[in-house]
Amino acid sequence: MSVRATQSLSHVIFDNLARLIQPRSVMIVGASTTMGTLGHTTVQNLLEHSDFEGEVFLVNPRGGQWQERPLYKTVGDVPEQAIDVALLLVPAESALTTLKACVDKGVRYAIVFTGGFAELGEQGREVEQEMLALAKRSGMRLYGPNCAGMTRLAPRLGLTFSTEFRNDGRNNLLSRIGLVTQGGGLGRSLMQGNERGVCFSHWFSTGNELDLDNADFIHWLAQDPQTDIICTVIEGIKDGARFVAAAKAASLAGKPLIALKVGRSDFGKKAAQSHTASLAGDDVVNDAVFAQYGVIRVDDLDEMLDVASLLSRVGVQRLQRLCVYSSSGGAGVLSADKVGEAGLTMACLAPATVAEMAKYAPSYAALTNPVDLTTKALVDPELARNCLLPLFNDPAVDAVLYPITSNYSASTESMVRNMLEVAKQGAKAFIPVWMSSRRGPAHDLLVAEGFAPVYSLRNAMLALKRINGYAARAAHKNDNRTESARLPEQMPLVSLPCNETQAKALLLHYGIRSPQETLAATAEAAAAQAKAIGFPVALKLVANGVLHKSDIGGVRLNLGNEMQVREAFNQIMVNARQHNVAAAGIGGVLVSEMINDGVEMLIGIHRDAVFGPILSIGSGGVWVEVEADVARCHLPADRAVLERVLDSTRVARRLASHRGMPARDRSALLDAAQRLAALFLNLDERVQSLEVNPLVVLNEGSGVVALDAVIE
Amino acid sequence: MSVRATQSLSHVIFDNLARLIQPRSVMIVGASTTMGTLGHTTVQNLLEHSDFEGEVFLVNPRGGQWQERPLYKTVGDVPEQAIDVALLLVPAESALTTLKACVDKGVRYAIVFTGGFAELGEQGREVEQEMLALAKRSGMRLYGPNCAGMTRLAPRLGLTFSTEFRNDGRNNLLSRIGLVTQGGGLGRSLMQGNERGVCFSHWFSTGNELDLDNADFIHWLAQDPQTDIICTVIEGIKDGARFVAAAKAASLAGKPLIALKVGRSDFGKKAAQSHTASLAGDDVVNDAVFAQYGVIRVDDLDEMLDVASLLSRVGVQRLQRLCVYSSSGGAGVLSADKVGEAGLTMACLAPATVAEMAKYAPSYAALTNPVDLTTKALVDPELARNCLLPLFNDPAVDAVLYPITSNYSASTESMVRNMLEVAKQGAKAFIPVWMSSRRGPAHDLLVAEGFAPVYSLRNAMLALKRINGYAARAAHKNDNRTESARLPEQMPLVSLPCNETQAKALLLHYGIRSPQETLAATAEAAAAQAKAIGFPVALKLVANGVLHKSDIGGVRLNLGNEMQVREAFNQIMVNARQHNVAAAGIGGVLVSEMINDGVEMLIGIHRDAVFGPILSIGSGGVWVEVEADVARCHLPADRAVLERVLDSTRVARRLASHRGMPARDRSALLDAAQRLAALFLNLDERVQSLEVNPLVVLNEGSGVVALDAVIE
Repeated sequence: MSVRATQSLSHVIFDNLARLIQPRSVMIVGASTTMGTLGHTTVQNLLEHSDFEGEVFLVNPRGGQWQERPLYKTVGDVPEQAIDVALLLVPAESALTTLKACVDKGVRYAIVFTGGFAELGEQGREVEQEMLALAKRSGMRLYGPNCAGMTRLAPRLGLTFSTEFRNDGRNNLLSRIGLVTQGGGLGRSLMQGNERGVCFSHWFSTGNELDLDNADFIHWLAQDPQTDIICTVIEGIKDGARFVAAAKAASLAGKPLIALKVGRSDFGKKAAQSHTASLAGDDVVNDAVFAQYGVIRVDDLDEMLDVASLLSRVGVQRLQRLCVYSSSGGAGVLSADKVGEAGLTMACLAPATVAEMAKYAPSYAALTNPVDLTTKALVDPELARNCLLPLFNDPAVDAVLYPITSNYSASTESMVRNMLEVAKQGAKAFIPVWMSSRRGPAHDLLVAEGFAPVYSLRNAMLALKRINGYAARAAHKNDNRTESARLPEQMPLVSLPCNETQAKALLLHYGIRSPQETLAATAEAAAAQAKAIGFPVALKLVANGVLHKSDIGGVRLNLGNEMQVREAFNQIMVNARQHNVAAAGIGGVLVSEMINDGVEMLIGIHRDAVFGPILSIGSGGVWVEVEADVARCHLPADRAVLERVLDSTRVARRLASHRGMPARDRSALLDAAQRLAALFLNLDERVQSLEVNPLVVLNEGSGVVALDAVIE
Repeated sequence: MSVRATQSLSHVIFDNLARLIQPRSVMIVGASTTMGTLGHTTVQNLLEHSDFEGEVFLVNPRGGQWQERPLYKTVGDVPEQAIDVALLLVPAESALTTLKACVDKGVRYAIVFTGGFAELGEQGREVEQEMLALAKRSGMRLYGPNCAGMTRLAPRLGLTFSTEFRNDGRNNLLSRIGLVTQGGGLGRSLMQGNERGVCFSHWFSTGNELDLDNADFIHWLAQDPQTDIICTVIEGIKDGARFVAAAKAASLAGKPLIALKVGRSDFGKKAAQSHTASLAGDDVVNDAVFAQYGVIRVDDLDEMLDVASLLSRVGVQRLQRLCVYSSSGGAGVLSADKVGEAGLTMACLAPATVAEMAKYAPSYAALTNPVDLTTKALVDPELARNCLLPLFNDPAVDAVLYPITSNYSASTESMVRNMLEVAKQGAKAFIPVWMSSRRGPAHDLLVAEGFAPVYSLRNAMLALKRINGYAARAAHKNDNRTESARLPEQMPLVSLPCNETQAKALLLHYGIRSPQETLAATAEAAAAQAKAIGFPVALKLVANGVLHKSDIGGVRLNLGNEMQVREAFNQIMVNARQHNVAAAGIGGVLVSEMINDGVEMLIGIHRDAVFGPILSIGSGGVWVEVEADVARCHLPADRAVLERVLDSTRVARRLASHRGMPARDRSALLDAAQRLAALFLNLDERVQSLEVNPLVVLNEGSGVVALDAVIE
């Protein structure tokens, strides 16, 4: 079963994109000599604002000239075959014709800026399908449509119509971070992060992703020697397997992949569907898949900038023990709060560190952690430097958090300047937090020296949380081998619909038992069978089409004698009639052994439209929705992944021994999860879901019992 | 019992502070003619940067002159009696002497800037106590010590040594918001909020709060006609009753009180103790008290600025139905996500609204909510204005959220200018979110026109959450009447220690029953008594000093016959011996009726050092710590408050009927909470806590049963 999934992943093939990202020749179709038009800006970006040394061909139906350069009237007129990249700024209605001409010209990659396709409805979707068919036939790859193009900053190459390209990367603060977004607006916002010292070296805005998609560019950045970190804004994932393969490539290359997935709430999903043609997907599944493959999920643009910038400065490491260093006592206390709330630790400073600081600090300064140098640090900037150095040398300190609450102009600037002298030499993480609404030279100095500040303690802690989570996961990476021992060789046949009895037989084949039970057609038979099983027993209606039996009074528990069983049987039949259950569909009533002692769990597996099989595990029983205590992972998943997922639920703690209550059979629960995963992966693809609830986890050594199972 | 509490609150008396905040005369002790000293800046602040028309007296031991003004050598030399305010910039060691001279001079308020007292240790605390005794004796009130003083901006009056005072409020954007902080650093940071359009009209930095404390200034601002909103940063609350009284005064005046409590995590508490002399308190109690009295609790400085600024613009109202208005599709989707995640709603636009926008918008714009005008809005700023107007007129829209992802210089500025024309006229809440790292003229225009932007969608949603929570509470304010029906008249005597049997007798007196049970000294007696009660039964060890019986194997449940009871009795005795329970302290074993069906809750009441009696209610049983599902309130509290507190727990949902399971007796649970509150308030003050766990809530109409009770 794990073989099939591995194969499906190995089917993912990525183009190497070299001739797109480092083209030797570029053709602009829709070049314009009219200032202020997109066609004009695009030509300017390439000829005037890029350091591009390849060949450039300009096409405009009216002909004419751009400075000394001719404007060809048609693509066919261009005197060159095998052009690497064509940029299309043509109206939507002529896009297909132009693409055909590009194919004839031997164009390798066509970047279609033009919008007005799938995002506007059915007709646009049809045109897109023709464009895609053309690409598949010809081998010419498509980028877009409805996209802002590609921005590369080292060396400079702007294949984009954006008037902002000329400003990109002009502050010489280029970071080793690449960016892939679908839309242009959020991407442009992130690109303006260069004002605070986060300057992406590449930006791919992929638009409707008709052919090339974000996975292609994530994969390319994972191989790119100029890139250490990859950021992506995703509106929809069309192909889960490609995304997973790209994420794995990034992980394998040791490059953190930071993702902002938009369209996560119901409102957002609805909005995403009108904005792009992507499937916004089920967000809890995105969450699970991202966590499983080491994608750092962030929730907002500023958080993405914070995480990327801090990671690019400190690399992948755990920053658990912080030292807070400030000139305000209140800021020290507030910072210590945030450190504690984030589950981090205030470092315990060595006596030598404190003694060294005491040589310089005033007597009223606090030299324990948080270190409060008081406003003396503002009038004596040497003090800030001299006290920072011993902290950098203290091995108990992972990172120094430096909250700057207020901007006192020149004194803040000289304090920052002095501290940066130390910070630039030290190998220790130094995290300035600019908490004032007033920026100015001290702020800009931090940016210029590569110490991009975060703007609130909340954001600093969020960034540390993301980085620590990533570093912890990187320390014990999932190698995705699936323990497949103790699984049956033979795959049983499943016909749909599959009733409870059939489902339980299937479970038994995979080593998961159910309570002793027999089907009874009459009250008398039920009473006799109950006596044979032993009291107490439960009765459960068996009827086609009834999934949630307890909702219609189809379940009675803890029946202690034959009389109670007879009465319960009759009542269940009355309830079924009252809820319009067809008499013909009623198969009788199951008489079951009662399992009273154990923890009620749920294991479910369903087929997600984007990623395929997803396993859910968590708190079961009738309170599933109320507890909402379920975690998920993508299948196949090895036992270590299943264990991590289980441990992220609250109910997992109930499996341990506690206050005289026995420990439960956690190992059998994980076995059951693996067995159900194997079962599901062996089932016909028409089966959409399998749910066992409750799955009762008995005392250690006694295994688990499936009380109910639904296969649909 | 409610009478006592009301009396204790009415004992809180606040000075009216008029002669402190609007003084007629000010004396500066420690005035200096040396540039750059605190003594010099303080004089400058008063004489050069304030619009102060009262009398000013300067004191410096060396004498001399400040321009034409004499420097008196001693306080005694000042030729005036009954000075309203004295500012002290003298060394810590001469503070007490100077204060005595001030008393002789008839000074009403002394602001002691000087630090070096309680925050440094025992010696400083002693000096403080002498200062306080002097104040109590003389009637002169103290402000500080170790404080940054007082800043008033309309009219300007700086009684502070801060070099920043000269810049405060210079952008003419004064807000109707007052600020009270202990330390100067966090307060100064907030004051620099004027750079983003949040300009406090008053700032009181109260330092060590030896005499006047934050409650005095909150209370004053609650009465001040220039103030609509009060912000406070609290490091410790010394007197819970005064704080509650001030919060109630603000609530009564309809003025939101926004509090940032620092020292909330364990690290922060430790740090707060070294930074100030305040008690940082138990944070879950602070949370409960703040919620109960309508204090808006925020977690960071930027959040305080966001909430205060938005509240000052839109007033107290619920902003539930949002319309997102942008020129980026991605920003629209991301915003819709955040709206959904925050539990808010995307407004459903009226057809007329859409039709009106369609007159101006391009065909490819999205005119449903989120409204995406596309980048067309950047090149046609009229479009942004024309489409905003119908949204402002749509009654289904509570607020328009305007995410500005990128700064496109002049085009963004003219778009913002056009939209502000509409926003300034409209009565509708308009919330710009500046998401770019690049500020500039468009940003500054928002600030100048009174539409202070927030800087991330996360922050916008957080501010809306706080404001909506406050507005919802304001809509059904707790009037604090306690239903005291069905409570016993007579107060029973409690002697400590109080064992389980005594505790349960007390509960019964207050109408809370326990299971039928009798004490058995031998295994045979236990078996006989079990038979009399009826099976199944539970056995529980009764022993002095053993509080958590299940931890030592002192509890056995569900014993079904006499043999099992005998065996269990013997095992409990073995366990007790193994855990070194003194034989003399063992009173026997309780044989109890088993209560198998119900929801296990906990009700506890303890005496908090700052606020007094605090009731906790939530999920009970052995999983209390694992579930961590408990909410709290301050006592006395009426039933509506108890109900809100109960409903904030997860377990409350288990009391409702669900999937064929019966509803539980929620009303009896609330009765029990009221009864236990009444009981606790009647107990001797030596009793520190009372805990009933589990308190089993039976089916509707069947009441509750206390299975265990501890009074300590």
